[in-house]
Amino acid sequence: MLINGQPASELSALDRGLMYGDGHFTTIAVRGGRAELWEQHLWRLENACERLRMSMPDAGLLAAERDRLVAGVEQGVLRLTLTRGVGGRGYRPAEDAQTTRILSLHPWPDYSAFPDSGLRMRLCDTRLGVQPALASMKTLNRLEQVLARAEWRDPAVHEGLMLDTEDRVVAATQANLFFVQDGRLCTPELTRCGVSGIMRRHISTLALAEGVDLRVGDFSLAELMNADEVFLCNSLIRIWPVAQIDSRNYPWGSLTRRLQKLVAQSLPT
Amino acid sequence: MLINGQPASELSALDRGLMYGDGHFTTIAVRGGRAELWEQHLWRLENACERLRMSMPDAGLLAAERDRLVAGVEQGVLRLTLTRGVGGRGYRPAEDAQTTRILSLHPWPDYSAFPDSGLRMRLCDTRLGVQPALASMKTLNRLEQVLARAEWRDPAVHEGLMLDTEDRVVAATQANLFFVQDGRLCTPELTRCGVSGIMRRHISTLALAEGVDLRVGDFSLAELMNADEVFLCNSLIRIWPVAQIDSRNYPWGSLTRRLQKLVAQSLPT
Repeated sequence: MLINGQPASELSALDRGLMYGDGHFTTIAVRGGRAELWEQHLWRLENACERLRMSMPDAGLLAAERDRLVAGVEQGVLRLTLTRGVGGRGYRPAEDAQTTRILSLHPWPDYSAFPDSGLRMRLCDTRLGVQPALASMKTLNRLEQVLARAEWRDPAVHEGLMLDTEDRVVAATQANLFFVQDGRLCTPELTRCGVSGIMRRHISTLALAEGVDLRVGDFSLAELMNADEVFLCNSLIRIWPVAQIDSRNYPWGSLTRRLQKLVAQSLPT
Repeated sequence: MLINGQPASELSALDRGLMYGDGHFTTIAVRGGRAELWEQHLWRLENACERLRMSMPDAGLLAAERDRLVAGVEQGVLRLTLTRGVGGRGYRPAEDAQTTRILSLHPWPDYSAFPDSGLRMRLCDTRLGVQPALASMKTLNRLEQVLARAEWRDPAVHEGLMLDTEDRVVAATQANLFFVQDGRLCTPELTRCGVSGIMRRHISTLALAEGVDLRVGDFSLAELMNADEVFLCNSLIRIWPVAQIDSRNYPWGSLTRRLQKLVAQSLPT
């Protein structure tokens, strides 16, 4: 782990990242010694810094620190966290705040219990609150996801479906969601809540380039239940077909398979 | 500062408090070597641990650690933070998670620019999202307050008024809000969002014991603008009259003065 470029494992307990969740992060797949979709992850960090009015660290500096951690790593997870650092008075940020950067390398998660043919999902009781000021960013305020993920322990259930407090479908606890209906690819709008993932953007770009009809909008649980295919995505799992949500079953469909192939072809390893 | 009972100023960067905002805190006034309203603050921590399914540290242990920090301190601020510690897989909490406890002593804030006769407030653009699962707790997810407090720099403006995304009045960025209308004391319901402060509870208890007509409910900005008196409260400032919200002026009214006196009498120093 590197904190502000220094090998370290501890951070000031006065850092605003801890005190107020005042920061954001991104999670990057490392394969064959490379941080996958690095430019896109960097764009996400820049965008969140701008929206939260934090200073963005130099991109060259981050790339150099990345290289120190990922060189020679065959498969792993790089987490890059930016916080507003120490200082300010109460909630008020200091005007000259120095962003803290934390790069940490983690082992690849054990997905051996997750079948390639499709995940089993349940509907979570925990809803996502509507908050446009924070929507789509991966901020350090993730208690909603923690509560949702704590709802079940059954290892045969792989993910949880989250709705917002106004009954729209949003995402899984740690992945974005797509579904197919009559040949059209659909994914929830994330301007009110949810996290706009890098893989979601990547898949959308690939799908549009291939002439797939893509609709980003508001969808109800009934619409999702009526879908022909459903899949989840994030930077680590890429695309994972969904086999079941509660008692409803879905096939590992043709558009899902086509997009899995396109994603695999678009990434070097 | 004490972290899990040891003098320390740094915390593991893998602590879930930092990684996900997975924890909560309380802010306590220290006066004359005593942590004010300790039992009430402890109750708040217990309540939040229960709702977030975290283990609550032993009360005697917390009291002993408190004493190590506040003994002989004439005036200061004690922050007590509890996080879900290190561990778990992604958002999923570990079943045997050990709560991290952080007690830190801070200097009393400089309120010299805040006139006793009344604060000047502005209406914040940042709204509070509706999220009953987290409402009323002082969790480590405080980005809404950070963004609201970052909206202004004018030192003549002391606090910001926050509404929720559905136009109800909720609170100030770092204080709860009361207002008086036709002799009735009113304060916003905090079951959808907002932080239920210890001083708000204390004032409500004192007011009810004195036969004051108290209404906890949903209020619009128009109702607040139409109020006869407005005041803010938190554990440090106790009660602070509000002199102005945007262009509307309020007097330092009789019920506000009466409650200020009652609070002062109820607390030893």
